[in-house]
Amino acid sequence: MLRAMPDHAQPHVIIIGGGFAGLAAARKLERERVRVTLIDRRNHHLFQPLLYQVATAALAAPDVAAPIRRLLRRHDNTTVILGAVVGVDPAARVVRLEDGSELAYDYLIVAAGASNSWFGHDAEWSSVAPGLKTIDDAFDIRRRILGAYEEAEREPDEARRRWLLTFVVIGAGPTGVELAGALNEISRHTMRQNFRNFDPTSARVVLIEAGPRILPTFAEKLATKARKRLAKTGVEVKVGLMVTAIDERGVDLAAGKGKGEGERDERPERLDAATVLWAAGVRGAEVGKTLGVETDRGGRVPVTAELALPGHPRTYVVGDLARVAWGDDGDTVPGIAPAAIQMGAHAAENVKRQINGEAPTPFRYRDKGAMATVGRAAALVDTPKLKLFGFLAWLMWVFIHILYLASFRNRVVVLFEWAWAYFSWNRPGRIILERPPRHGARPLPPDRAPGDSGRPADPPPA
Amino acid sequence: MLRAMPDHAQPHVIIIGGGFAGLAAARKLERERVRVTLIDRRNHHLFQPLLYQVATAALAAPDVAAPIRRLLRRHDNTTVILGAVVGVDPAARVVRLEDGSELAYDYLIVAAGASNSWFGHDAEWSSVAPGLKTIDDAFDIRRRILGAYEEAEREPDEARRRWLLTFVVIGAGPTGVELAGALNEISRHTMRQNFRNFDPTSARVVLIEAGPRILPTFAEKLATKARKRLAKTGVEVKVGLMVTAIDERGVDLAAGKGKGEGERDERPERLDAATVLWAAGVRGAEVGKTLGVETDRGGRVPVTAELALPGHPRTYVVGDLARVAWGDDGDTVPGIAPAAIQMGAHAAENVKRQINGEAPTPFRYRDKGAMATVGRAAALVDTPKLKLFGFLAWLMWVFIHILYLASFRNRVVVLFEWAWAYFSWNRPGRIILERPPRHGARPLPPDRAPGDSGRPADPPPA
Repeated sequence: MLRAMPDHAQPHVIIIGGGFAGLAAARKLERERVRVTLIDRRNHHLFQPLLYQVATAALAAPDVAAPIRRLLRRHDNTTVILGAVVGVDPAARVVRLEDGSELAYDYLIVAAGASNSWFGHDAEWSSVAPGLKTIDDAFDIRRRILGAYEEAEREPDEARRRWLLTFVVIGAGPTGVELAGALNEISRHTMRQNFRNFDPTSARVVLIEAGPRILPTFAEKLATKARKRLAKTGVEVKVGLMVTAIDERGVDLAAGKGKGEGERDERPERLDAATVLWAAGVRGAEVGKTLGVETDRGGRVPVTAELALPGHPRTYVVGDLARVAWGDDGDTVPGIAPAAIQMGAHAAENVKRQINGEAPTPFRYRDKGAMATVGRAAALVDTPKLKLFGFLAWLMWVFIHILYLASFRNRVVVLFEWAWAYFSWNRPGRIILERPPRHGARPLPPDRAPGDSGRPADPPPA
Repeated sequence: MLRAMPDHAQPHVIIIGGGFAGLAAARKLERERVRVTLIDRRNHHLFQPLLYQVATAALAAPDVAAPIRRLLRRHDNTTVILGAVVGVDPAARVVRLEDGSELAYDYLIVAAGASNSWFGHDAEWSSVAPGLKTIDDAFDIRRRILGAYEEAEREPDEARRRWLLTFVVIGAGPTGVELAGALNEISRHTMRQNFRNFDPTSARVVLIEAGPRILPTFAEKLATKARKRLAKTGVEVKVGLMVTAIDERGVDLAAGKGKGEGERDERPERLDAATVLWAAGVRGAEVGKTLGVETDRGGRVPVTAELALPGHPRTYVVGDLARVAWGDDGDTVPGIAPAAIQMGAHAAENVKRQINGEAPTPFRYRDKGAMATVGRAAALVDTPKLKLFGFLAWLMWVFIHILYLASFRNRVVVLFEWAWAYFSWNRPGRIILERPPRHGARPLPPDRAPGDSGRPADPPPA
């Protein structure tokens, strides 16, 4: 049955992006006398904090993604559109889509998020060191990881096998630490008994951080514990080393930004690895550049205290794309889900106030802290009141993530998957979608000539 | 820890394919004094009977697929290789892989299965009417279905929207019937409340069969009930109509092979549809052509009563690729999972007998019947002893499929998904992986000129 149609006489609010911030804004507007259009370039909301579990085969894609139009199906005043916004004209109050169509708005909430950034090396590095922002990224990373093991099983050459079984993660923020922990668990546990021609525990997992320590946004004590845990379970952690080049064979490292907890771990070096993953940085979405203000180094749009675009009080920017001052010492609100939710809801609240003839209010960030997992059954919890590392922190991590997933249908499935994985050590998502795996066409590591591989030359096509 | 290595002094058994037949063969050989190599071009076993549920967004890919090397991890004598076999030389007892390497065998079990066949039109039809054999196929189909709805929400032109919301399934065997039933359920229930600019229940689902009735391998009484149920729930069933052309805009139909249950449904006609799915036929895998015997029309390899290649008693062919006589009236063993399992196990049994100096025994097919679902909560069960249609048959279908899944880890998740879907009408897998959806570039239906669509022309790139 067709629902009541949105009323075209009411003020039109456009929301760009169906992530945490955009959804929070839409929910705040559900019962208002406005017409809402939410535009996203993908049909699904993505539960980004668990995406690394899809990349490492622990969860299936539908466990961490839900169709936006289903989530908003009871919002009679809301239309969801699959489309890519290429520009905004805040003076004319118009949003331009990729297909050339334009949508006029009375109020706009830009919640377009962030994308991977290779710091000026996007062209060369993005294909050899994929980042993790979308489900497609996660599938690509999964294919590389699983493909490397598959290829190793058939590789007679010892040096080339070592190369195939070296996994490098660049960037030791929460995503990098979580990826490295999961990669390590795959080699130590998931792959046990799975291969006949090599020992999967011989795989190397290397976590590289340019700064002086891992998890720089967490309390140093917790980060130190996390580092020790990673090292104990087998991850090689290298801090103070900056990546200067990445190619299909590996990475070049040079001295990084200095260090804070002892010696520099390594001299500048070359690291041969078939699989390199990028977790070192993101940048505000491209649409931020069309708003007529200068974005910061991270592509973020500076906003007013009310979260509006300076000079355009009906155009809001929220979530990872917004640069919002926080506190007095120059900090900004971090790019994490709770902050995005708070900003999205606040911008929608301000829209409501404006429609009712009231003045918008300034945004106040409520810091609920942050958490991250470190491999199996260990996590960090870092809140203003509580600093915790270990199993109890991991239980809190599980609990909070299940709670956040609660607005989707996925919590029971995810809980089951986790419980099952905990006791079985398995990862159900070990599916390589395309064949052949990506490494097939890669060159040998630099010190090997093709004749060394022990493989016969390709015959002419049969 | 590295497991005991396969013993190279023992007879080498190669199994090509990790489907139902190949896995059954590997399991029979687990405790034998042989060295087994299983080769598959994908890393996962696929539970093919439920693949249509991935294509229609009811299940996630990992629910119906499991890594072969995990399933066989406890088989110390078995090595699993990800690779594509391009040829077999049964005289030299050698298997040739895509990368040029060759593997010698003492015994070979070819269980390479079947692939989609468009009956001589592969080149033109495969891209506009995808079939359903792999997870990639399922994702492609899912993207087309969901993409059509997404595009319809933005389509101002009534005729083009009708075209976008017409779904044609060609072939009314179990897969075609199951796809049509699921497509219908999506339009009637899953999409409810999801759109603002059209009524999703206005979508047309058309099931086309060239033969005189749907489900030709089932008892006619059951098939008639299934047809009535499909019609009652809204599927347009057209029998006796043959597809003569398929393009991006739709299909051309002509009088089919005649009919058996009343009038011919339709005159030859043109059917405009944005989404056309192919469920009309498969063909034995390509490797069957390299075995030195003439394959039948369906690409199947005729085998001896012992399931061996004629003249080559150490080379077996089983599963969908084998043409096995059954009964006295020219029938052959059907291409269904239970038959594949029986054949794979029997071939492995014969290998064991040969190794022990005994003569191989002839294969005897035990017909356990067949089942298929017809949309929500209805199914057909057709066994030699029992013919059943309806809800009870559907419960049997659920029970049997969960049982078959039991060798994987997926049964609890699938059971939960089904229970949840039954009560919520939702389909959790509604994720479009790539953007934009495929229909974006498609031409308009033939009777519409581009200017009719009501869309503004594309502006120059910004």
